[in-house]
Amino acid sequence: MVKPSIPKGTRDFTPVEMMRRNYIFDTIRTVFHRHAYLPIETPAMENLSTLMGKYGEEGDRLLFKILNSGDFTKGVDFQDDTKSVNKLASELCEKGLRYDLTVPFARFIVQHQSELTFPFKRYQMQPVWRADRPQKGRYREFYQCDADIIGSNSLLNEAELVEITDEIFRAFGINIVMKINNRKILSGIAEIFCSADQVTDLCVALDKLDKIGREAVCAEMLERGISQEAVCGMAPLFELEGLSNGEVLDKLEQMLAASETGRKGVEELRTVLDYVSKMQIATELQIDVTLARGLNYYTGAIFEIKAKDVAMGSISGGGRYDNLTGIFGLKGMSGVGISYGAERIYDVLNELNLFPQHIMTPITAMFVNFGGDDELYALAGLKALRDAGVPAEIYPDSVKMGKQMNYANAKGIPYVIMAGENERTQGVYTLKNMQTGEQQALQIDDIIGIWKKNPR
Amino acid sequence: MVKPSIPKGTRDFTPVEMMRRNYIFDTIRTVFHRHAYLPIETPAMENLSTLMGKYGEEGDRLLFKILNSGDFTKGVDFQDDTKSVNKLASELCEKGLRYDLTVPFARFIVQHQSELTFPFKRYQMQPVWRADRPQKGRYREFYQCDADIIGSNSLLNEAELVEITDEIFRAFGINIVMKINNRKILSGIAEIFCSADQVTDLCVALDKLDKIGREAVCAEMLERGISQEAVCGMAPLFELEGLSNGEVLDKLEQMLAASETGRKGVEELRTVLDYVSKMQIATELQIDVTLARGLNYYTGAIFEIKAKDVAMGSISGGGRYDNLTGIFGLKGMSGVGISYGAERIYDVLNELNLFPQHIMTPITAMFVNFGGDDELYALAGLKALRDAGVPAEIYPDSVKMGKQMNYANAKGIPYVIMAGENERTQGVYTLKNMQTGEQQALQIDDIIGIWKKNPR
Repeated sequence: MVKPSIPKGTRDFTPVEMMRRNYIFDTIRTVFHRHAYLPIETPAMENLSTLMGKYGEEGDRLLFKILNSGDFTKGVDFQDDTKSVNKLASELCEKGLRYDLTVPFARFIVQHQSELTFPFKRYQMQPVWRADRPQKGRYREFYQCDADIIGSNSLLNEAELVEITDEIFRAFGINIVMKINNRKILSGIAEIFCSADQVTDLCVALDKLDKIGREAVCAEMLERGISQEAVCGMAPLFELEGLSNGEVLDKLEQMLAASETGRKGVEELRTVLDYVSKMQIATELQIDVTLARGLNYYTGAIFEIKAKDVAMGSISGGGRYDNLTGIFGLKGMSGVGISYGAERIYDVLNELNLFPQHIMTPITAMFVNFGGDDELYALAGLKALRDAGVPAEIYPDSVKMGKQMNYANAKGIPYVIMAGENERTQGVYTLKNMQTGEQQALQIDDIIGIWKKNPR
Repeated sequence: MVKPSIPKGTRDFTPVEMMRRNYIFDTIRTVFHRHAYLPIETPAMENLSTLMGKYGEEGDRLLFKILNSGDFTKGVDFQDDTKSVNKLASELCEKGLRYDLTVPFARFIVQHQSELTFPFKRYQMQPVWRADRPQKGRYREFYQCDADIIGSNSLLNEAELVEITDEIFRAFGINIVMKINNRKILSGIAEIFCSADQVTDLCVALDKLDKIGREAVCAEMLERGISQEAVCGMAPLFELEGLSNGEVLDKLEQMLAASETGRKGVEELRTVLDYVSKMQIATELQIDVTLARGLNYYTGAIFEIKAKDVAMGSISGGGRYDNLTGIFGLKGMSGVGISYGAERIYDVLNELNLFPQHIMTPITAMFVNFGGDDELYALAGLKALRDAGVPAEIYPDSVKMGKQMNYANAKGIPYVIMAGENERTQGVYTLKNMQTGEQQALQIDDIIGIWKKNPR
């Protein structure tokens, strides 16, 4: 008998983990709802034609592919030695597991455009799968929580995403810093210091700043064909830290004056910050012109969020994309969105001990099972409790009291209720507070009353 | 450009469908919680060694298999003509998508036994995947909602599952009939009328009673080697309909007197019905000795639920299994569980028009966007509403009023809030009830008050 296991990079969630995860999802969902985002879901499997080529070569390689059903060998020539592994995979597999929520969302929009009302605000909280090498904090199955608005160019949407982020992380009690940039600023920088078509090289290099530092980024720029002169010219861009957002905007305005795109980027950023300044937001919002977030589809705002009190990569990111649905044939749909990573948030909450205590005690009371008529009497009390909305249970077997109490202790159940012949004849139940050890004989309605006063 | 699509048998869920589906999941979850079941989740992917051989040959065929990552051809001999398609699949794929929640649950129990407190009551609501031929009401990705208690032989657990079923379907407003049988009764029948080792043939044939009728079932029994005499002897078993449960139990007691297993089955059934009779249950609970539910792993109670007012297959089923974790090396863990099919419940609620109206209007109010200072004034009102927990939005662009009102109408938003210069100088907002057309100029707190009185 082989010891059962699960695929590497995947996880089971026990009740304790589930309650914590549900707390994360519920908190995020509550904020999304309040901001009038509506839920959608897409299938775990997409046609590979939908997914391939959307995430770069690396992404294609990391897609989980599903073997065709039935006789998957039919029509496949296995003798052809010149056939690449990728080609063979494409003959064996038509479907793959979704890699993120953004591409399926774009596909969804195009497919359902006639049923939807635009601007369309949707949220989506589902697992995604990547055949990445598993390591600490990186899984092959993990959840993304995305909010996007599509079909509106208004920069109010960007500001709302900042507001939502602020509300979510305040609800969690996590101090964050939210960085913001604009792809048009990066384009302007490329135009002015190197050339417009080098913006991708610039972004790819800048994206590594956090990991490898400024010097190595400059080296990478040179390696990617950006001139020494351009690299030197950009030096001031690395020295904006410590300035206020207003000062940064003013400096950028000067530096990028000769680029129309660059000026547009600065203006957009100014508008977003203007909106945000009127929104009573606690979150620290920082312009960071080196923020690029490799994803090539961003065309306007770029966001990134980090926790202040924990050393960890970004826990959330997003931006505006003007062309996303274009890949599926629908032009002119601008969208802006943000994605919160449930796993990273979990780790931060865990490390900072920020999970609220009350989410861990979902069961309020356990009735001890004394069997026979006592059991029936307990069942009547149990029903009254549940009818009042109190999550409660009875130990299913009338085994030794000690075993039943151990069970209640192990599960962290705060109240144990006992009723034997004495209680039964008096129409009461003995309620034991498991923390204080205190016992009281009470009517069932009084027990319900105690719970209603403090519904945990 | 290919029109985007999704794999056959899978579905997207638009907000309207999501709200209905979430209503189903929330209703079921609330009942599970109240009965102290705790949530777990398992990965979408399991090792194929966990899944293969657990669902019969048909099941193995219907598993979605995931192509190994990286160079999946390495070490695979494609030239061997004698290799079966199944053998080749097993060389190309180590992982598969879960087929149900029961086998992963059994695997979970064995793997995490040291972290869990037994008896363990868990619920699990996750999608499963089957490469079945898609047809009306049958999908390749669908959700199961399972509740199981493992590690307790008490028949109180069976009664509780009846109680939970009663509460769930009363909450939905669906009239159901719940059928109950006991595998030991079927074993007793086999022992007495044919032979103990024919119980599987008996079950497989009986399982088709609903679809093919009594005569065809008898023909199938004969075909499967059950003697003519046995088939005739069993005739009275088909004629118990219309009798009360008590009468059925008495008859069975007589008929199965010579079988210890059969007597045990009758006694178990009697105990369950006894508990249930004390639980104020509205659901009609019917003994049906022909209920077999093909699944070979049931060893005690068998349940099946059908909606009364809709012609549709079963919407839920379950039973007791003594040996489930045995396949993963953990003996002596008896469990009993039930599985509710979200898709079937959706169809019943839809057909009977039972979805509550309020779940369809998740957004309470939309502010019209007049731009400039009016926009900022609207944003202040919006923030006040959201802070009070009212889901609300502002149209993101200051486009023509007509377009904004069309948007609110299309989304079914019940209240539209307008504020121009007049309102702004007076510190009020004009609230328009979209159903009655009525308009009122109100302070933002009064608008919040209206919502708090009727929080929809």
